[in-house]
Amino acid sequence: MTQTELKMTEIIDVRNYIEQMETDTVLIVVDVLVWELYSDVLSLETITNKKIFYWKSPQGEKTKTIQEVEKCFEYFLSKGVHRKTHLVAIGGGATSDFAGLVASMILRGIEWSVVPTTLLSMVDAAIGGKVAINSQAGKNLIGAFHLPKTVLMCPQFLDSLPLHEYVSGLGEVFKYTFLSHDIFNAIESNLPISEVIYLCSQYKQDLILKDLYEEGDRIQLNLGHTFGHALELIYEIPHGEAIMWGMVIIFKIQKREDLIELMSQVRSQLKWDIKNPPWFNKTFPTDKIRQYIEKDKKKTSQKMINLIVVDKVGKYSIREMELEELFQELAELAHEIRSFHF
Amino acid sequence: MTQTELKMTEIIDVRNYIEQMETDTVLIVVDVLVWELYSDVLSLETITNKKIFYWKSPQGEKTKTIQEVEKCFEYFLSKGVHRKTHLVAIGGGATSDFAGLVASMILRGIEWSVVPTTLLSMVDAAIGGKVAINSQAGKNLIGAFHLPKTVLMCPQFLDSLPLHEYVSGLGEVFKYTFLSHDIFNAIESNLPISEVIYLCSQYKQDLILKDLYEEGDRIQLNLGHTFGHALELIYEIPHGEAIMWGMVIIFKIQKREDLIELMSQVRSQLKWDIKNPPWFNKTFPTDKIRQYIEKDKKKTSQKMINLIVVDKVGKYSIREMELEELFQELAELAHEIRSFHF
Repeated sequence: MTQTELKMTEIIDVRNYIEQMETDTVLIVVDVLVWELYSDVLSLETITNKKIFYWKSPQGEKTKTIQEVEKCFEYFLSKGVHRKTHLVAIGGGATSDFAGLVASMILRGIEWSVVPTTLLSMVDAAIGGKVAINSQAGKNLIGAFHLPKTVLMCPQFLDSLPLHEYVSGLGEVFKYTFLSHDIFNAIESNLPISEVIYLCSQYKQDLILKDLYEEGDRIQLNLGHTFGHALELIYEIPHGEAIMWGMVIIFKIQKREDLIELMSQVRSQLKWDIKNPPWFNKTFPTDKIRQYIEKDKKKTSQKMINLIVVDKVGKYSIREMELEELFQELAELAHEIRSFHF
Repeated sequence: MTQTELKMTEIIDVRNYIEQMETDTVLIVVDVLVWELYSDVLSLETITNKKIFYWKSPQGEKTKTIQEVEKCFEYFLSKGVHRKTHLVAIGGGATSDFAGLVASMILRGIEWSVVPTTLLSMVDAAIGGKVAINSQAGKNLIGAFHLPKTVLMCPQFLDSLPLHEYVSGLGEVFKYTFLSHDIFNAIESNLPISEVIYLCSQYKQDLILKDLYEEGDRIQLNLGHTFGHALELIYEIPHGEAIMWGMVIIFKIQKREDLIELMSQVRSQLKWDIKNPPWFNKTFPTDKIRQYIEKDKKKTSQKMINLIVVDKVGKYSIREMELEELFQELAELAHEIRSFHF
């Protein structure tokens, strides 16, 4: 398996990286808003040694449909793509999820690289080759494993990131602090965000190298995601924020108030000031949550589910539960969860 | 990499195989005509230890569109698929190409098996995990590598195979006779077709084990395919037949009349009695052929193409040519090719 190279760099150097690629044809999939803001700095039109074709993808999850995938690869294929063509995704997690799936399918897979432009994609989505689009039945149910060749991280993009997007990225950083002692310590020591980004992306990358197909240790990255995905869809909140609240539910099911206390502490270090859960002043619909989880891919069979739980910072375990049992516990905790806030 | 298991068996035993799978949910993608003819013999409705969901796919290439893929996985996902769900494709190469792509994308890849029902799929399409659908720009341009767990070959299906489909399968058998001495000898010795099928599928399987991603020896399987794919689309002839005529063009470019002579000999052994090429009484449009090849995926860059040529039975080599040079040679040979027949 070819390892992905993680590079911290400046936006202005992306152009050089593309220019030096060993190919005569480059396909660029770029988030339309990123293009508006950064096409001048990127100055890709000054590359003269390659054919470059552009696909501007709609912002966010709107791009993650099979219809967009079809339009995109019909466009690129009509241009005469060949096996050594390289695709470059420039954007957030939705853009790289979409672009990576296109790259995995064109000619059964061409090489690709990512220039993540959000915190969430720098620490999570752009790393590890899991690419996907959404189904009517749920998020990310249609996809592939297709490792990028390079991830070029330019923290400079974060300067223009809207606050709610930044907070969403912090949600995944949150997850890493419970999985890795090093990251926990980095945050406790108030290291700059670019170093935290590097540690998180490297942590995920190391896991992937050991476990591309999620048969083993990589499963820990799903911490908070079982409930998180359901919350994200039900309340239409950013992914990372949903993961953070998904972790709260898990810790409640674990009956580990000490971990929730630790979350409070990490929250202030990360300057995360959202205090109320998405169900505050709304319903907490356990039935609807169950429906989403039943269709979710982490079920090992129709009746069982693998839940990632935290024993202590830096140590997780897998709890295989019957769906029935999980939802009975959730029903018992519903009142307590409903009234929870930081 | 998990190896595919190749099994020769009876149609009536497919049911037992499915019943013994280690899963509680099975998705069946079956060619609608195969279902009409064989659902009684298959008697899958007598399986009671699993949930089974059926998708009847339109016949032939009509199923190999992104729209069909979308309808199929939305249908299966709405049923509550999980990671240990197993998909079974029952049909010819188009069905397994389509079904394998669906299996590769659902939850980023679930296990699948194939019950090939045509000669072409037994010796070629069902073996090796290359799955794909068609693009407006050409055949099989959108796809994945996804090895089936098992291929269950029941030569009994060939009893109902239309003659032109059988002949199409012979086209690929033809290709193997030039790549493998053992297969050449088997055909010279008039071994029964079930043994020839086993030898061809095993030959392809052995190559795949050494070379899943087509970076090395597997490329020999493209013999006849560069021109074959173009002929298939231009004249709307069966795949295998197109490959056979594609080999004629290659041997003409190689200026190897001895190999064409050998083809004549194999033709009579295989009782293949099509004498006239598809361009007989029609035009031989080199420009159109070039257009298809330019969009084809075997190009290594915009200007170069890798052509598989035969040195002698059992020995191939790769000739890297400029597209320009190839089409100049083709133009010079056009008159000779136009008037060719067996």
